Amino acid sequence: MVSHGSIESQIQATGHRLFDAIGRNRPSFFQGSRITAPLLDACLADPEFKRQLLQFVDVYPTLDDKQELYQHLTEYFPNGNGSSHQPALLDLAIKTAGRFGSFGKGVASFAVEQSIKTFSRQFILAATPQQALPKIKRLNSQGYGTILDLLGEAAVSESETAAYQKLYLESLDTLANDIPQNATNFESAPTIQISVKPTSLYSSASPLSFDHTVKNIVEKLLPICQRAKELGALVAIDMESRQYKNLTIEIFKRLRSSSQLADWPHLCLVLQAYLKETSDDVDTLLVWAKDQGQTLNIRLVKGAYWEFECAYASQHNWPIPVWQKKQDTDFHFERLTQKLLQNHEHVYYACASHNIRSIAATMEWARHYETPPDRYEFQALYGMAEPIRASLLEQTSRIRLYCPVGDVIPGMAYLVRRLLENTSNDSFLRQRFADQQSSQSLLSPPRSPVPATPPKRSTDFQNSPLPDFTKPQVRDQLPQAIAHLRACLNSAPETPLLIGSEQIRTSDTFDSLNPNAPNERIATVSIAQEEHIAKAIQAAKKASGSWAKLSFAQRTDLLKSAAAKMSERLWELSALQVLETGKQWSEALGDVAEAIDFLNYYAQQALRFDTPSDCGKTLGESNQLHYRPRGIATVIAPWNFPLAISCGMTAAALVTGNPVLYKPSSQSARIGYEFVRLMLEAGFPPGALNYLPGSGQIVGNALANHPEISTIAFTGSRAVGMRLIQSAANPPPDAREIKRVICEMGGKNAILIDSDADLDEAIPAILYSAFGYQGQKCSACSRLIVLESIYSHFVKRFKSAVAKIRVGPAEDPRNDLGAVIDASAQRKILEYIEIGKDEASLLYQSEAPEYGYFVPLTVFEKAHPNHRLAQEEIFGPVLSIVKAPDFETAIKYANDTPYALTGGLFSRSPQHIALAREKFDVGNLYINRGITGAMVERHPFGGHKFSGLGTKAGGPDYLLQFLNTKSISENTIRHGFVG
Amino acid sequence: MVSHGSIESQIQATGHRLFDAIGRNRPSFFQGSRITAPLLDACLADPEFKRQLLQFVDVYPTLDDKQELYQHLTEYFPNGNGSSHQPALLDLAIKTAGRFGSFGKGVASFAVEQSIKTFSRQFILAATPQQALPKIKRLNSQGYGTILDLLGEAAVSESETAAYQKLYLESLDTLANDIPQNATNFESAPTIQISVKPTSLYSSASPLSFDHTVKNIVEKLLPICQRAKELGALVAIDMESRQYKNLTIEIFKRLRSSSQLADWPHLCLVLQAYLKETSDDVDTLLVWAKDQGQTLNIRLVKGAYWEFECAYASQHNWPIPVWQKKQDTDFHFERLTQKLLQNHEHVYYACASHNIRSIAATMEWARHYETPPDRYEFQALYGMAEPIRASLLEQTSRIRLYCPVGDVIPGMAYLVRRLLENTSNDSFLRQRFADQQSSQSLLSPPRSPVPATPPKRSTDFQNSPLPDFTKPQVRDQLPQAIAHLRACLNSAPETPLLIGSEQIRTSDTFDSLNPNAPNERIATVSIAQEEHIAKAIQAAKKASGSWAKLSFAQRTDLLKSAAAKMSERLWELSALQVLETGKQWSEALGDVAEAIDFLNYYAQQALRFDTPSDCGKTLGESNQLHYRPRGIATVIAPWNFPLAISCGMTAAALVTGNPVLYKPSSQSARIGYEFVRLMLEAGFPPGALNYLPGSGQIVGNALANHPEISTIAFTGSRAVGMRLIQSAANPPPDAREIKRVICEMGGKNAILIDSDADLDEAIPAILYSAFGYQGQKCSACSRLIVLESIYSHFVKRFKSAVAKIRVGPAEDPRNDLGAVIDASAQRKILEYIEIGKDEASLLYQSEAPEYGYFVPLTVFEKAHPNHRLAQEEIFGPVLSIVKAPDFETAIKYANDTPYALTGGLFSRSPQHIALAREKFDVGNLYINRGITGAMVERHPFGGHKFSGLGTKAGGPDYLLQFLNTKSISENTIRHGFVG
Repeated sequence: MVSHGSIESQIQATGHRLFDAIGRNRPSFFQGSRITAPLLDACLADPEFKRQLLQFVDVYPTLDDKQELYQHLTEYFPNGNGSSHQPALLDLAIKTAGRFGSFGKGVASFAVEQSIKTFSRQFILAATPQQALPKIKRLNSQGYGTILDLLGEAAVSESETAAYQKLYLESLDTLANDIPQNATNFESAPTIQISVKPTSLYSSASPLSFDHTVKNIVEKLLPICQRAKELGALVAIDMESRQYKNLTIEIFKRLRSSSQLADWPHLCLVLQAYLKETSDDVDTLLVWAKDQGQTLNIRLVKGAYWEFECAYASQHNWPIPVWQKKQDTDFHFERLTQKLLQNHEHVYYACASHNIRSIAATMEWARHYETPPDRYEFQALYGMAEPIRASLLEQTSRIRLYCPVGDVIPGMAYLVRRLLENTSNDSFLRQRFADQQSSQSLLSPPRSPVPATPPKRSTDFQNSPLPDFTKPQVRDQLPQAIAHLRACLNSAPETPLLIGSEQIRTSDTFDSLNPNAPNERIATVSIAQEEHIAKAIQAAKKASGSWAKLSFAQRTDLLKSAAAKMSERLWELSALQVLETGKQWSEALGDVAEAIDFLNYYAQQALRFDTPSDCGKTLGESNQLHYRPRGIATVIAPWNFPLAISCGMTAAALVTGNPVLYKPSSQSARIGYEFVRLMLEAGFPPGALNYLPGSGQIVGNALANHPEISTIAFTGSRAVGMRLIQSAANPPPDAREIKRVICEMGGKNAILIDSDADLDEAIPAILYSAFGYQGQKCSACSRLIVLESIYSHFVKRFKSAVAKIRVGPAEDPRNDLGAVIDASAQRKILEYIEIGKDEASLLYQSEAPEYGYFVPLTVFEKAHPNHRLAQEEIFGPVLSIVKAPDFETAIKYANDTPYALTGGLFSRSPQHIALAREKFDVGNLYINRGITGAMVERHPFGGHKFSGLGTKAGGPDYLLQFLNTKSISENTIRHGFVG
Repeated sequence: MVSHGSIESQIQATGHRLFDAIGRNRPSFFQGSRITAPLLDACLADPEFKRQLLQFVDVYPTLDDKQELYQHLTEYFPNGNGSSHQPALLDLAIKTAGRFGSFGKGVASFAVEQSIKTFSRQFILAATPQQALPKIKRLNSQGYGTILDLLGEAAVSESETAAYQKLYLESLDTLANDIPQNATNFESAPTIQISVKPTSLYSSASPLSFDHTVKNIVEKLLPICQRAKELGALVAIDMESRQYKNLTIEIFKRLRSSSQLADWPHLCLVLQAYLKETSDDVDTLLVWAKDQGQTLNIRLVKGAYWEFECAYASQHNWPIPVWQKKQDTDFHFERLTQKLLQNHEHVYYACASHNIRSIAATMEWARHYETPPDRYEFQALYGMAEPIRASLLEQTSRIRLYCPVGDVIPGMAYLVRRLLENTSNDSFLRQRFADQQSSQSLLSPPRSPVPATPPKRSTDFQNSPLPDFTKPQVRDQLPQAIAHLRACLNSAPETPLLIGSEQIRTSDTFDSLNPNAPNERIATVSIAQEEHIAKAIQAAKKASGSWAKLSFAQRTDLLKSAAAKMSERLWELSALQVLETGKQWSEALGDVAEAIDFLNYYAQQALRFDTPSDCGKTLGESNQLHYRPRGIATVIAPWNFPLAISCGMTAAALVTGNPVLYKPSSQSARIGYEFVRLMLEAGFPPGALNYLPGSGQIVGNALANHPEISTIAFTGSRAVGMRLIQSAANPPPDAREIKRVICEMGGKNAILIDSDADLDEAIPAILYSAFGYQGQKCSACSRLIVLESIYSHFVKRFKSAVAKIRVGPAEDPRNDLGAVIDASAQRKILEYIEIGKDEASLLYQSEAPEYGYFVPLTVFEKAHPNHRLAQEEIFGPVLSIVKAPDFETAIKYANDTPYALTGGLFSRSPQHIALAREKFDVGNLYINRGITGAMVERHPFGGHKFSGLGTKAGGPDYLLQFLNTKSISENTIRHGFVG
């Protein structure tokens, strides 16, 4: 290692020199106009105002008339009610608009539009490359290099990605036509540079279908690179959020290795210093480059999605992938810089930071490693940190500006990021130019990382993390597990009953098949008869005594041990779901993870019943509420969440001390069998959980009607649920009690699209909510209610987006939509599609393979809210779009079915969001996100009306249903002695 | 006023002189034997051991074989598991018994018996007056006066009170025959003195039937006093707990005023300095004495039921009637002493305290007021404080010992009080002789009272206090209210429907009658028709919007204001219950108080739903659980708790935002009407609560089946409840949802009598549980399951106890049992009595008046647990006794009905109590107390099996049933900005 001490003092000296050069100059953003400066001040002073402003800026582009704009202004910035930091001008605009009717609204609208324009002009060069040319030329003439960044919306369809490809190609041509190769004095770097976003080139990008994604993006990028090569230009592949990072690196390598781009060094890869993984990535890339004899062109940035990465990981229960503290990122930025500069023979390095300390360190490490000036450069963002860029130009003459070009709408996300960057507490620019921190403190060396914030307490419930498919070794697991399982099932498909400690094979059996390949038998399942139910009741009663007597804490331990076993067998259990129920990879894994969550969550929840709760203290009397097991429970489970729902209902019954007679769905009988075996292996006593497959008509009814059953937990169709409720209401003469029925039934769930919805977010969320697992979820979206004002725009974008959905066997991760569960479901869905064709207008229909229980993905529009299509549960990939004249009517349509399960809303109007919270009558309301995939604890799940009876699964009140409450009052006075 | 300073210094001087005289002598109790001393030490050191020991001492007399004794020993003093202070000898005894079988148990049993004997010999002279004579004579010959106290069990029947009267008379004769008049040197006080307990002379003593109680006790006491007068003896009327205090004072006055006892000064009244009221009582008595020209003979004690008085008041939600701190009592003891000594012309005063400070003060105040020596004396308890009594004898020669005589069994309560007194932290004896506090500190003057412990926080729920009938003005309220109400009803019986803001009179009506006098019409009630139900639904829907929109806090305020109104109208509403439903006074008041409690409790509980609860925090996502009103609720109420249950169900529905269609029982329709009027007056909006009387068949069914109804809250019979459940399970085609049914139905409740039960406690509790309000409570006891070993003893005592129950109109507080609700109930109960006569053996049957819907109180014994008598709900004053061979079987019998509502256990075996807690399958288990009268919050009420479906009324989970849970998840990320 080098002596850091001497380098450090040189860095400090250089840093001070740079600061001196900057002098009292401030970036234009911080001097600002009369309009932006007060906004910025307010953001700096008041985080709540900043939140409101950012959200308003986010929604602004969709507000296309002055009434809407005024409406949103008043919702985001309630007059008098808002922050004390709210700029007076804003208050004035709102007041004017409120007072002077249409004219006033026009004035306010104009004022806001001007402000936003001023704001965007700060950071965005122009709307098109053509329009940006004069500015680029001027910058070039001042000595700045430039790189063109084409702002864009998320590409939600392949027609949109095709448009982006075209735009990139045209931009290269536009620039090449007008800008001379020698416009800048950078010897080694092309004058013409553009930045491309990989996800803008493929709308189904996913780490899960890694190779498929890479292939699709490389296919689209290759012509762009070839054109750049021809033009002597550079193409930088932007780095987006971490989930696409490994894909992006792979795309970079594939392109660099392609014969068409041989020896073309001008493909730049962006890396983010805030990612903990980047250190390893740099090492791997260096090895690769040396091996391949390639040079790397790397732009190192700090990273602009810090908050998002934290939230995304937190929502997936993954470790936070970014450094928690800004100075940790700065520390790593310097380390990475050092390594890249040291390897200058293999790397062309671009230092993209506004932080003087980072810049000074780059200069000094370059000097130290004798990195030739033509092997590195500096970069800054257009519209930010002007004094720094000027000073750098003076000092190094190798500074390139990142130049965004595009409309305000697609540019809004970029604006939000810049506003965040300028106002974050940790921002160098804020610290220097707003908070006026001293040079000394800003130049102090970043300390080496300290441990991150402590994790959740170990007693808290934690959701089970889903596998991170960005990791190659993770991607291999499921195909291996499927292959192994297939071999096992093939040789031993027999699936006996499990009663007490016996395995019982019956002569009467049925076969469970792979829906995507019905000639593949998954299991041959014994069918329970009357006698087996009697036997199971006996076994349960026998187990009951010892089982109910255990403390909640003891039963809790068994649940936790089952959860641990399930985690160990994650891949095997998921593979079984892929084969038996035709689940896509992530669906299968999600189901197993949810099952684990139910075990852990109910284990944690049950503990509160371990100690009776005191009620109403008074002297001489001890009063407590005890919670006692109800008695034997029947669990009748569906096939669509074959492990999670089975496990949730069963775990709840067991942990509260009730033995269980479990009937799996016949379509997922083998999963049910593996589940029961796992529970028994985890230590549940024989008889506490019995496995009794068979038909609902016979086994289900017999279980439900048995006089010894206390509780029926059911998830399934409305028709069967109502039958169970009726049978509980008519107990047999020898019944020991009125059975309690815990029932989750169907849904006819709607997503509302408000006129200001963010369609970049809405469309992918709708596609997944409606067609994930072929729409075979009670939570699935089957109605879209779209406000008239956005209807045609939405339908157009949606139609092209839906076309990208690939139909094919679930086993192949490239396919989005697989077969439905069985022939009868297939028949029923096809019938509904015929009904739909009569009632409404077909917007889109996919192909469907002949072999396997496939149905075409089908979207209807112009559906009437009273149509059968919009009233009845179809349970397949069929979606109907209904147009609503206004928001209140949209909610009315949404509520106007017999169901109340899930519902969604995409809106950026605080008032509409509040209205939906109040009036959208569903069990689970999701705002600005998809409506499936409820997480245990975070989204307690269940509905009312004809969707269900019980309290919410995975929520705090669920276990109460499996318990009787016993109030015990003891007089503790004895002959005047109050004990 | 006198100069306190000089008196104080004299008190100190006298106190020190007394201490000097005592020297190093300790009371025998604190020197003790090898057996009692370690027990006492353990009690002093460890409150938990003391509790166990006191409870063991309490149960000991009932343990009549060595196995039972051994069993209880191990239960109370678990070996190795007990206190570290547990005396080694006790451990040894238990170990010996455990190891050496029957012989070992014999040894242990003998050891314990000897210990208890030693212990009781300390405080009890002998088992009978005859046997006590030698000890009395010896004490007299030493110069001590004596007063004989005959220990006794509670008198639970008139045969037992007759026996006590006989015992008192015989004791006087025994003493007079053997002890010369001049055995002591007290000139003015009779040598022969006995102490009597007023409640031992009348087994139905109650402040509620004040005059009746006084009359009965005076009748029994008069012959005793006459005999004493003839013999020149003194009779002291002991003061028991505060509830009998005013009765006792009145008895004293009546006797003193009776012509037969004219000019007989030797009737002594005991007053307790710890009662706050005693100050006023002394003043009143002095005025009375002066007016009447009578002299008073007063013994002033500190009071021995301090803990009990605190507990009793706390359980009745009354202010604590005793001084909270011991020194406050001491302070008042001195003030009262001063006053009584000052009035020596009208008072003969006995100072009964072991506290040297109190004694010294008495001596000095007597000196100060020049109270003649023959106008006051000192008293001490036999077996306690021997050094003090000796010193007093020396100093004053007027010291009388209170001499308990009796068996160990009845004496146990006395022993417990003495053990408490010797071991209490505040006890003078403990402080001096165990803790060895200095004379200085023990003689310091008690400071004047400081305010008591702060009351409950005002936000906490508080049960509504019942009227305190010891107060004469309270006793007048109800008769006045009844008279007034009767006049009003007579002139305006019309009772219209209340729908929205309309009062509607229909042509079709029914009359509600007074069950005790069926020719008295209470109301003429309009009957709701189909059209009125439709109208009410419209009114409810109209109210619904505004009502549901109110915050929980706002609705809560309305509930509280209704509660306040109800408290104001307590007497009127109670009077109506007496007349319309034939409730006894306390039953009627209890019902109104419970209604008030429901209002206040649900108001308090609802607040927690005002703020949605966060679930599972994660970044970028806001997750909350909201609780929303379900929709219109039907409330169908019973007549037996006509206000409380109506109000509970209605308040729960209303506070959670659901409008209510309320159908009262026809038998209590007027009460229902007054209830709804009161709620509307309190501010509930028109339409939020509608009054729709009519038959269950027509109005009830129509309400239950209506498609717009979301929730049915019902309390009533099993048959009707099941019909409602069935109708909810079969919703009409246009129903908006599956109705939720909240159902409280019948019970067939048992009380278990263990072989070690405290029958003094059990018998009154059973009588009230079985026959309170004619047994017309779903919680009422209708089965007694009695362990074989105690069966005949129990049945004998119980039979004589039940005979005291007076049958007659409820309006008259002397009557315990009134008419049942109507002719149909009367018929049904009489039929069951006939069935009972076939199935079992009639133990007791009362008379029943011809006029009014009376049935005879009936007790069967030798009932078989499978008899219809022991299986079906009778809902009348019919009780069946079942014999059980052992405790486990008793629990089996108890559980062996279709119901699981309330249950009771009288036992003093910790193991049996634990077993019942575990296995006695009821909703409400009551241990060592009655099984009716559940208090809101303290005893959340409700059952399972065929007793009910819902969670517990008056408990923390009740409101959940009227709510839908809405889980709302909002994605707060916008374009990478995590809001």
